[in-house]
Amino acid sequence: MSTATYQRRLATLRRMVERRLAVAVTPGSPRDLTEACRYVLSAGGKRIRSTLLLLSCEAVGGTARQAVDAGAAIEILHNFTLVHDDIMDNAVARRGRPTVHIRWNVNNALLTGDVLLGIAYSSLLRTRDSDIPRLCALFTQGLIEVCEGQALDLEFERRENVSARDYFTMIEKKTGRLIALAAEMGGLIGGGRPKDIGALRSFGHYLGRAFQLQDDLLDVIADQATFGKSIGGDIVERKKTYLLLTALEQATKEDRLYLETFMRKYPPGTDRTDPKARARTITDVTAIYHKYGVIDETRSLVDRNTRKALAALTALQHSGATEMLARLSEELVQRAS
Amino acid sequence: MSTATYQRRLATLRRMVERRLAVAVTPGSPRDLTEACRYVLSAGGKRIRSTLLLLSCEAVGGTARQAVDAGAAIEILHNFTLVHDDIMDNAVARRGRPTVHIRWNVNNALLTGDVLLGIAYSSLLRTRDSDIPRLCALFTQGLIEVCEGQALDLEFERRENVSARDYFTMIEKKTGRLIALAAEMGGLIGGGRPKDIGALRSFGHYLGRAFQLQDDLLDVIADQATFGKSIGGDIVERKKTYLLLTALEQATKEDRLYLETFMRKYPPGTDRTDPKARARTITDVTAIYHKYGVIDETRSLVDRNTRKALAALTALQHSGATEMLARLSEELVQRAS
Repeated sequence: MSTATYQRRLATLRRMVERRLAVAVTPGSPRDLTEACRYVLSAGGKRIRSTLLLLSCEAVGGTARQAVDAGAAIEILHNFTLVHDDIMDNAVARRGRPTVHIRWNVNNALLTGDVLLGIAYSSLLRTRDSDIPRLCALFTQGLIEVCEGQALDLEFERRENVSARDYFTMIEKKTGRLIALAAEMGGLIGGGRPKDIGALRSFGHYLGRAFQLQDDLLDVIADQATFGKSIGGDIVERKKTYLLLTALEQATKEDRLYLETFMRKYPPGTDRTDPKARARTITDVTAIYHKYGVIDETRSLVDRNTRKALAALTALQHSGATEMLARLSEELVQRAS
Repeated sequence: MSTATYQRRLATLRRMVERRLAVAVTPGSPRDLTEACRYVLSAGGKRIRSTLLLLSCEAVGGTARQAVDAGAAIEILHNFTLVHDDIMDNAVARRGRPTVHIRWNVNNALLTGDVLLGIAYSSLLRTRDSDIPRLCALFTQGLIEVCEGQALDLEFERRENVSARDYFTMIEKKTGRLIALAAEMGGLIGGGRPKDIGALRSFGHYLGRAFQLQDDLLDVIADQATFGKSIGGDIVERKKTYLLLTALEQATKEDRLYLETFMRKYPPGTDRTDPKARARTITDVTAIYHKYGVIDETRSLVDRNTRKALAALTALQHSGATEMLARLSEELVQRAS
């Protein structure tokens, strides 16, 4: 498959979902709520989860059209989490625009998230010729785990003793779950055999893990211009990433003491506002990552999980869709690094 | 049916739902989230919505057992709205206990609401031998309208020109919708004919309206000891109730001016804290309600809607369950007045 064909096909799938998202919010009352819902759903983005869902449906012999309502549903579910997470994290901007609670207010953002969840189920329920009870059960389990993941993330901010293993539990729920769910739902809607649906679930599971580890890694090694976010943001924010937690576990007493003292300076002080202090913090922590080989270790974990994801795919009959899924996976974990 | 039989039967239905609610939250992580969910669901209350749902199922020939998971689901949905509404309203107590955002924090309350919604769908999906897609669609429509109702309620707080008609739109979504939904879902699960399900929907619609009007009325006329809340709270809070909005529409220029000036004193001033100022505000506004016959008018609207609800019930074959529904309706709209 040529790169042009791959890109064209991706664009077509995204357009199908965008069209659904554009009409998902029915004109209702009051205006603030409707407008905020439309604002959120029109923000664009890569639509990774819906693309995975549509391709997974095709990969077991279904059509993208069959899966498009469920694809829109999973994007809406994802956006519900973003709106509520932004309230909890006091985030002021997302995708270059003010967050909902900044553009309107916290109450409207809270309700926007709630109603988006209703709109997500509505969209899911428009899926035809599928096992709706099972689809709803999967979707609901995904919703619950995403909330648990976010709750763990908040808890980790306050807790001192977080292990790399705890981190995996959290991130698998918060980020990995929806990726795995997308693949599994696509397989179910496409009428895949249990074995094929299992392979897709496994594919999504490893891909989700690779995806998040890569995200942690990019904060340290990315090319700033391509990455879009400023480098070292996770470090300055004392975010308990896989890199930091692994460094803590492997560091000698002296370095561990340094890291622990560094982490206790929360909320971040001058290194958030003063460029020089910021650069020094980032350089120091990154040096420790390099010293203990944490960056290479994470990179190899990304590779290993990506390989496992691709291996899971080989259980499916080879097709244009499985090829697309493989290419998309490689693209996702090689972003800008 | 004797009062003892009626009370015993009600208690049995409530116990069935309580048992489901007690196991609805599976032990998950993190602890704060699980504990907050259990805290909310163990708060008791009259469980009006689930009782209506179970009785409606019986009224079309089904069993309460068939409907109990859906009954728990609608109580959980109701509690999700309470947790989020309490955040938005800055409420510090509910049912004599601190609200979730006070007992824990706003972030945990936000996530508790979100995850309760997932738990509600999980419970609903445990319903056997029913049209799950239709049940989910009804439930989802209910969720969306409840959010819209709350958004309208918040909007009305800021808006000056709210009509009694606007009020009905809002309250029908915010409060009436779940009552009507309970009756309709019960009818659907019990395998009722379309005509019977329609009668139950209609019954729920009028009952929901009577129920809310009565709530507005009780704020002014209730016996404080029985009502539990302090009298005149809606007045002091400048809540745009049916009473206030109707008085505004019917008052002469002078009284309307008084009410408009009164309403502009928001947030409430000394009359929230100083008992004398509070008593004066309540006496003055109540006097205007009496002057324009607003209290009698509201009382007769409660009666009219209750009669319509009971009339809708007569379309169903008479049974112990329809008798229970009729008695429960009368009890609900005669609370402590």
